[in-house]
Amino acid sequence: MKILEELIIQNGKVIDNSILKVDSFLNHQIDANLMFEIGKEFKERFKDKKIDKILTIEASGIAMGVTVAYFFGVPLVFAKKKKPVTANSVYTSKVFSFTKKKEYDIIVSKDFIKAGEKVLIVDDFLAMGGAVIGLESIVKQAGAEIVGVGIVIEKGFQEGAKLLREKGLHVESLAIIKGFENGKVIL
Amino acid sequence: MKILEELIIQNGKVIDNSILKVDSFLNHQIDANLMFEIGKEFKERFKDKKIDKILTIEASGIAMGVTVAYFFGVPLVFAKKKKPVTANSVYTSKVFSFTKKKEYDIIVSKDFIKAGEKVLIVDDFLAMGGAVIGLESIVKQAGAEIVGVGIVIEKGFQEGAKLLREKGLHVESLAIIKGFENGKVIL
Repeated sequence: MKILEELIIQNGKVIDNSILKVDSFLNHQIDANLMFEIGKEFKERFKDKKIDKILTIEASGIAMGVTVAYFFGVPLVFAKKKKPVTANSVYTSKVFSFTKKKEYDIIVSKDFIKAGEKVLIVDDFLAMGGAVIGLESIVKQAGAEIVGVGIVIEKGFQEGAKLLREKGLHVESLAIIKGFENGKVIL
Repeated sequence: MKILEELIIQNGKVIDNSILKVDSFLNHQIDANLMFEIGKEFKERFKDKKIDKILTIEASGIAMGVTVAYFFGVPLVFAKKKKPVTANSVYTSKVFSFTKKKEYDIIVSKDFIKAGEKVLIVDDFLAMGGAVIGLESIVKQAGAEIVGVGIVIEKGFQEGAKLLREKGLHVESLAIIKGFENGKVIL
């Protein structure tokens, strides 16, 4: 996706030749126009699929999730990062963050993912796939079905996308980072 | 705002005659079309103001913040709820949550609110005003200016809106709850 790749090249910051910071347009300050273009692009890439819900994780998945949901004309549901409190009414799962080297809990109310629903998972980053695997567990617990995974920035040099495709998931990434060289992003 | 008031009446859940749950359309499952209508409505209500940035707090402010930002053609910045780690590069503030009866830290990178900028604060709920007061502190630290406060649901029976207006802030609320009666919301 050209506008996204240009923003990554122009405004992404590479730290220690290994971390890409995109907090000036994707996950702290947010380029609202880019969010709209992302919503439109995912609608195009998954246009042949019947989709009932968009599912993401707070906080940085929400801004793009809401535009994707808008273009599909369906609700967005975001998983919350917190300890499950009322076990009867929520699905819970664990996400292992390889970046932060720790596990955290996510929850989704049982009211908002129902058996038989077709769910499109979206997220801002895909590296090792931890977040998507956590969301997949929640969709399965609900008896719903994942029809696709939409990622804004895939770290192509990590295992996540391969792992998800081996599970039979249809993954679409809008930008794929091949690696870093001399403090620059290689797309 | 009619569509919002209808959703509150139809889908809001009143708990213990004192708490309004709107997690089926505003802060867990999100009605994307409503978010767009909210964005348009705030653009209309603040149309005479010059605005450089929209500022909110994660997570539930983000979905509406991004549509407001879209209609103003400016970036959204969301304050993160976490302990300040790198004190040099961020503004920090504290928010007292009267609902949860505890204080939490919020941070905003100094890169994203600059001196002289005109900032519109938006949030999903206004009760005692704790979140807006925390954000106001960050805007002041940056030497920027608050041009308005856009609230989706104001609890009119609590002190927040009065307090903010006494500070000279222009507050616009899209729905105002007068109170609860027999488990129903009174608008």
